[in-house]
Amino acid sequence: MPTRPVIFVVNGPNLNLLGLREPTMYGTDTLADVETLVRAKADALGFDVDFFQSNSEGAVIDKLHAARASGVGVILNPGGLTSTSISLLDALLAIELPTVEVHITNIHRRESFRHNSYASKAALAVIMGAGIAGYGFAVEVLAKTVRTTELSGE
Amino acid sequence: MPTRPVIFVVNGPNLNLLGLREPTMYGTDTLADVETLVRAKADALGFDVDFFQSNSEGAVIDKLHAARASGVGVILNPGGLTSTSISLLDALLAIELPTVEVHITNIHRRESFRHNSYASKAALAVIMGAGIAGYGFAVEVLAKTVRTTELSGE
Amino acid sequence: MPTRPVIFVVNGPNLNLLGLREPTMYGTDTLADVETLVRAKADALGFDVDFFQSNSEGAVIDKLHAARASGVGVILNPGGLTSTSISLLDALLAIELPTVEVHITNIHRRESFRHNSYASKAALAVIMGAGIAGYGFAVEVLAKTVRTTELSGE
Amino acid sequence: MPTRPVIFVVNGPNLNLLGLREPTMYGTDTLADVETLVRAKADALGFDVDFFQSNSEGAVIDKLHAARASGVGVILNPGGLTSTSISLLDALLAIELPTVEVHITNIHRRESFRHNSYASKAALAVIMGAGIAGYGFAVEVLAKTVRTTELSGE
Amino acid sequence: MPTRPVIFVVNGPNLNLLGLREPTMYGTDTLADVETLVRAKADALGFDVDFFQSNSEGAVIDKLHAARASGVGVILNPGGLTSTSISLLDALLAIELPTVEVHITNIHRRESFRHNSYASKAALAVIMGAGIAGYGFAVEVLAKTVRTTELSGE
Amino acid sequence: MPTRPVIFVVNGPNLNLLGLREPTMYGTDTLADVETLVRAKADALGFDVDFFQSNSEGAVIDKLHAARASGVGVILNPGGLTSTSISLLDALLAIELPTVEVHITNIHRRESFRHNSYASKAALAVIMGAGIAGYGFAVEVLAKTVRTTELSGE
Amino acid sequence: MPTRPVIFVVNGPNLNLLGLREPTMYGTDTLADVETLVRAKADALGFDVDFFQSNSEGAVIDKLHAARASGVGVILNPGGLTSTSISLLDALLAIELPTVEVHITNIHRRESFRHNSYASKAALAVIMGAGIAGYGFAVEVLAKTVRTTELSGE
Amino acid sequence: MPTRPVIFVVNGPNLNLLGLREPTMYGTDTLADVETLVRAKADALGFDVDFFQSNSEGAVIDKLHAARASGVGVILNPGGLTSTSISLLDALLAIELPTVEVHITNIHRRESFRHNSYASKAALAVIMGAGIAGYGFAVEVLAKTVRTTELSGE
Amino acid sequence: MPTRPVIFVVNGPNLNLLGLREPTMYGTDTLADVETLVRAKADALGFDVDFFQSNSEGAVIDKLHAARASGVGVILNPGGLTSTSISLLDALLAIELPTVEVHITNIHRRESFRHNSYASKAALAVIMGAGIAGYGFAVEVLAKTVRTTELSGE
Amino acid sequence: MPTRPVIFVVNGPNLNLLGLREPTMYGTDTLADVETLVRAKADALGFDVDFFQSNSEGAVIDKLHAARASGVGVILNPGGLTSTSISLLDALLAIELPTVEVHITNIHRRESFRHNSYASKAALAVIMGAGIAGYGFAVEVLAKTVRTTELSGE
Amino acid sequence: MPTRPVIFVVNGPNLNLLGLREPTMYGTDTLADVETLVRAKADALGFDVDFFQSNSEGAVIDKLHAARASGVGVILNPGGLTSTSISLLDALLAIELPTVEVHITNIHRRESFRHNSYASKAALAVIMGAGIAGYGFAVEVLAKTVRTTELSGE
Amino acid sequence: MPTRPVIFVVNGPNLNLLGLREPTMYGTDTLADVETLVRAKADALGFDVDFFQSNSEGAVIDKLHAARASGVGVILNPGGLTSTSISLLDALLAIELPTVEVHITNIHRRESFRHNSYASKAALAVIMGAGIAGYGFAVEVLAKTVRTTELSGE
Repeated sequence: MPTRPVIFVVNGPNLNLLGLREPTMYGTDTLADVETLVRAKADALGFDVDFFQSNSEGAVIDKLHAARASGVGVILNPGGLTSTSISLLDALLAIELPTVEVHITNIHRRESFRHNSYASKAALAVIMGAGIAGYGFAVEVLAKTVRTTELSGE
Repeated sequence: MPTRPVIFVVNGPNLNLLGLREPTMYGTDTLADVETLVRAKADALGFDVDFFQSNSEGAVIDKLHAARASGVGVILNPGGLTSTSISLLDALLAIELPTVEVHITNIHRRESFRHNSYASKAALAVIMGAGIAGYGFAVEVLAKTVRTTELSGE
Repeated sequence: MPTRPVIFVVNGPNLNLLGLREPTMYGTDTLADVETLVRAKADALGFDVDFFQSNSEGAVIDKLHAARASGVGVILNPGGLTSTSISLLDALLAIELPTVEVHITNIHRRESFRHNSYASKAALAVIMGAGIAGYGFAVEVLAKTVRTTELSGE
Repeated sequence: MPTRPVIFVVNGPNLNLLGLREPTMYGTDTLADVETLVRAKADALGFDVDFFQSNSEGAVIDKLHAARASGVGVILNPGGLTSTSISLLDALLAIELPTVEVHITNIHRRESFRHNSYASKAALAVIMGAGIAGYGFAVEVLAKTVRTTELSGE
Repeated sequence: MPTRPVIFVVNGPNLNLLGLREPTMYGTDTLADVETLVRAKADALGFDVDFFQSNSEGAVIDKLHAARASGVGVILNPGGLTSTSISLLDALLAIELPTVEVHITNIHRRESFRHNSYASKAALAVIMGAGIAGYGFAVEVLAKTVRTTELSGE
Repeated sequence: MPTRPVIFVVNGPNLNLLGLREPTMYGTDTLADVETLVRAKADALGFDVDFFQSNSEGAVIDKLHAARASGVGVILNPGGLTSTSISLLDALLAIELPTVEVHITNIHRRESFRHNSYASKAALAVIMGAGIAGYGFAVEVLAKTVRTTELSGE
Repeated sequence: MPTRPVIFVVNGPNLNLLGLREPTMYGTDTLADVETLVRAKADALGFDVDFFQSNSEGAVIDKLHAARASGVGVILNPGGLTSTSISLLDALLAIELPTVEVHITNIHRRESFRHNSYASKAALAVIMGAGIAGYGFAVEVLAKTVRTTELSGE
Repeated sequence: MPTRPVIFVVNGPNLNLLGLREPTMYGTDTLADVETLVRAKADALGFDVDFFQSNSEGAVIDKLHAARASGVGVILNPGGLTSTSISLLDALLAIELPTVEVHITNIHRRESFRHNSYASKAALAVIMGAGIAGYGFAVEVLAKTVRTTELSGE
Repeated sequence: MPTRPVIFVVNGPNLNLLGLREPTMYGTDTLADVETLVRAKADALGFDVDFFQSNSEGAVIDKLHAARASGVGVILNPGGLTSTSISLLDALLAIELPTVEVHITNIHRRESFRHNSYASKAALAVIMGAGIAGYGFAVEVLAKTVRTTELSGE
Repeated sequence: MPTRPVIFVVNGPNLNLLGLREPTMYGTDTLADVETLVRAKADALGFDVDFFQSNSEGAVIDKLHAARASGVGVILNPGGLTSTSISLLDALLAIELPTVEVHITNIHRRESFRHNSYASKAALAVIMGAGIAGYGFAVEVLAKTVRTTELSGE
Repeated sequence: MPTRPVIFVVNGPNLNLLGLREPTMYGTDTLADVETLVRAKADALGFDVDFFQSNSEGAVIDKLHAARASGVGVILNPGGLTSTSISLLDALLAIELPTVEVHITNIHRRESFRHNSYASKAALAVIMGAGIAGYGFAVEVLAKTVRTTELSGE
Repeated sequence: MPTRPVIFVVNGPNLNLLGLREPTMYGTDTLADVETLVRAKADALGFDVDFFQSNSEGAVIDKLHAARASGVGVILNPGGLTSTSISLLDALLAIELPTVEVHITNIHRRESFRHNSYASKAALAVIMGAGIAGYGFAVEVLAKTVRTTELSGE
């Protein structure tokens, strides 16, 4: 079986606790549920998935660099790094892959210090507040973007 | 045939020119294409659609008030009113319907005066930068939300 | 019966839903109750009332211009236009009638983006948080102001 | 004769000069006129009045604390303390009595450093620019609030 | 007689009162005088004029959209919308016609909240403080711009 | 019995209501309980206590000046003066005694206008959110500081 | 001997410690030295002096009100109230006497939160950094102002 | 031949390079072309011209002072001094001549640090983005202003 | 011997150099001294201690997550992460354990960019400037909080 | 006759028009009057004067550098350079002479953009609003400072 | 061969991609080229080099701490940590070694959120925009600084 | 001997005092030492030098304009003009020569009002804190840039 293009799904700090903490805010779906959902959707659209989570900014950046070598697109939930990490933005700018930023909740309904997202400055699309379904939409956006780019011969 | 629940799709100023202006930024899909996409997706999920566009804030608010009487959810692309209209936010707060805010482009890659969205403070979810596909995702979010609410008997 | 001087009562966006939405914040009195209260109070003090509500900034301004021709004072509840409409301020400056700004709730107990009021820069008095009774106080303020101005021959 | 409920009317710095200074801004009514007006209105509505003025923040706070023990509501004109005293706000929060903030003039037509009012964050209602009549309206607001609370058995 | 190119002159809120209100600030020339001046100047330079005023942002945007279909340039006095309407800016960006922004007075001598102009970000030229003569200069700027564009074959 | 060194415990506006108001925020311990706790702890460590509360900034400053003459350290809970009184900061700078600032609650979990503390710029230590136990810790800090200073012969 | 006009010299919080605290910043002259200097200078120019200091804002305001009744000018060193007291500004505006603001040190060489002075908005002149000699200059300014006003018959 | 009134045209730093640098921004017209245009237009309207450019703020101010003695109006292009020179504003306030501020480009389409203009606070009119034609319009504005002032006998 | 409840003591970047660097600011106590102090105090109160330091934000977050599983409270000195790490705040919110934030020095006497603490928004108490004794106070606060919670059966 | 120490009096832009422009703000005394006053006062105190005015920042700085070589103190009225010239501040820091900053008017009663003074950060004393008498006071301050420094052998 | 002093060259996040990404901004030199350049220059000047890169803030800090033990100076390119890491600043302050901050590009020509550098507050020198040559200059600065310090016996 | 390309070295206000003032901040090297260093380094690399200093912004701009005619690169130390002169930035933009900005000290360790540099927005490289050696590095950067440009035939 030939290799299929790979979508990297990269999750930042504290997302390992998804579904375990503050369920009234984040719901009861866990990160394992996210992985199942993403793999199913990606598989149906002809993509493999590299699924990752770390609480360390450095590890998140290393993974994004890895995507540059072997991925066709990135789904990024930066978690607590959203509003503070310029290094993450730089990594996105450096790898030059289509990226969809996903947040489980609508961060604009939370404290004002969460409203700015450095990653958004490099992202193709941003989906927030759709719960874990947002990851599925992100796969669709990337699939379409990758196919369009291929067709246009870019 | 029994009446089906109605999703209101409300578009603000200048969206009537979608696909006709600045195609490198907004793409070539027109608002008619958006309507076709939304109606197909909604129909498949068991919803009717009330599709609307106006350049007048007052007309947009009137339509949102109408949704309060006869709709189960709102998809709102506030266009140029995004960052300035508190009246629109108040209308969303008043009608108390699940709302998904959609933008064709990722507004965080544009000028800083476009980054704030009053509507986001009342929206359930925000989807931006996914092109007109964002409207389709919004229908999915609303369909799921409405069904969940019905099941829980709220 | 000779014509009596007319007070214009102008209500902005979303006030048509007064009493119908968010009753814990705005109470259960409707805009029809406001009209009844204002007409009774004005009648007792020798004034007629032109009572108006619109969700459109343009229509609100048109009505204020009409007050310039046939009114002696204005009671204005700008609703969601309070903090954003310089056009409304300009209209008040242009018509040069004594104006009382009324808000059902105390806007200073709400989000900070609601605290600024452009209309206040032109208003004679501001009454907020007194519920619909504020409209009645406003009639009293205008009645006294008009009489004082007449007496002084201005 | 049975004791009647008491409304505390508390006036801050410089209000002792009301009517004596800057009459083009503040009018010619004196603080004694305010007291006469308030006592008449309160008497008609079945309330007694404790009327007070001090140039000292500490004395104003002491009086508010006294209201907690023996009053049913407060009318507060904080004068020059309006925009600077968090202690006054804390006192209002501590005594938990319905409070109406009154200003003789519309402070929003003055310098921007006067626009913030800490007291407004705890006040039930705010009335400004209505001259000394604002004190009378404040009595009405308190009378209605007290009666409503009594009826609802709170 | 062959059709001549059309310049759209679009006036925003409160400009219908020009010459009737605050004459010490705005002078005594009326909007009818502006129209006469503009038509004469345009006629001499070989242009027709579509002259318009509305207090409604939506109507102003509709008219700008109309200019896209049948005009060669726009003269815009946004009135009270100057500092607040991003929708107006978006409309100017969308129609891609040379635009001259005109203000009767020099807005930089007024309150600071009037200093920002969103329209200026899209305008070719800005003329303020020249009274109604500014409209005439604007016609000259547009006439020259249109002729230059034609000659260069753009 | 020889005189023991004296720690001044100075409490600002509204702290006389401690335990009586807003118990969910401030707990049920009263200022008398604070005094008991402080006196016991100080006694055990060989210090006397001058315990004071006033709602007047002037009286608080007078007391701090008194500490300069007869105290070895200060525990200060500035209450509502925390974020606004530069005079209090100046008094602390003038008396040059080791000072521990204490707050019953963690002020950083409250409104942003409470986050700045002028007193903190002069304080040796700041303890907040530990309830009345914070006063006891403050005694320990002062006791240790005074002994260290004595030993080093400063 | 006929009564001579009186200059009020009003000193705010912490100035009682002048010369006793932080001598490297404030010098070794005491407030008693200031009084001696002012009385000598005033006497030579034909004025009496009412010399006052308090740590209480309320007492300072009361004294300024007293100056309104029996003084011809004010020398004010607001101390720690300089940057925070709007009540002090209001008192100066109310008493309408020529006022010279004096600071021992140049406050612009200190922390930025000390740079704003509300009193300066009402003061005729401001003298800072001249040590206690500044009080003497202030007497000269007032003497000249009072004489000029008398001569012009104002 | 009798002396004709003189319009001073004063150009600030870097305008000597007009037409020589960055032609895509500033066009190819040189400062000599500006002078030719202004002299022709002024001559036709009965005025002489004193035309000046300097890279030194001091020399620009000296020239404005000269205009006070022998000119009837000023056309000022402050160049790089626009947003930074309060001395230039003071000079305009001091000479009390009608002034038209001209910029070749629309400064509001450039970086935000260029948007403020101190000169605008004293200018009668501001014309920007009209290229060198703006100087011609400025002559017309001044000619009309001077004639109006003469007629009204001011 | 039955297991005792565990307090996690988590130290952020650069605290491994405590006592070794900048002794005039941080004193000469080392992190080993802190550990000794904390263990002794905790032991006396019936708690075990998990003591940790890392220069990596990710490792600090991992340790806080571990506390969620096996700890009853947290003492956190975030070091240089205090003012910048939202991820740390999110971790504290997620683990829902009582937390005391400790700083060796009073950060409010340092540069303004150190004054904000994200961790403080989630902390129960904050102790700063008490040197390493602050850790001991923190143990006392946690011990008391844990016991109180147990007693109330929460 | 032996050389006497020299005080440099340096005046910045527009001060050559003193007494000639805006007399209601600046009075009718001219810069020649200032020079006469300063020379008389300095002569009486045993000093010579180097009196200077220029509209050029560069010339003002050159003169300050000259003072470094041959002066003992500086009186500086920076005029329009007050709020904008860091070069002037640097010059004052470089020459290390006692400097008194003088303004004819109280700049804190004018527009906010005039309130900051870079020169004040290096000045010994600041005197404003005392009219031209402020220059005389400045001579006294310098005379006293120079004598004190000589006596202390610095 | 005796040990030579060691310069630590520490590179932050994303610098491993130097020369591989965005070559129009960063050039085509790789981090290996930087290492070669630095080693050659250092060797010629008598220094050894410890060359390091990591995407993890924690690892960068650990390396800086190592420099404290065995290095004589640091060359730091903080990459994306430049504007956000106070921990990095603290590490520099703690190790007390001469540090030169290097950036490949001139960060002041990029987005404003990149302009602040915490590291700059502790750095001896900052070199930006000189490409990889900046590292070479940094070696020269350190070599000179180390020799100077040795000579002066510090 | 054929003419060699010329590097212009332009120094702004107060740099003539280099080495003479504040040696603890700026060192003891004088501007003559800078000139010697620059000429030696430039000569070795095949360039002539035009070395210049002025306290006048206008003269600095004139010199930059001269560089446009006869130079191949610019080394600029703007001195006190760094943070305030937009005219200097405009001159750099106009002359379109590679420019290296040099500061003797690291301006980021000084007051915040010195941190912004307008010149940096146009500079190729910025070198600060390297003492006068920074000028030498700047020559190297320019030499390399000029040669690269020549080779690429630009």
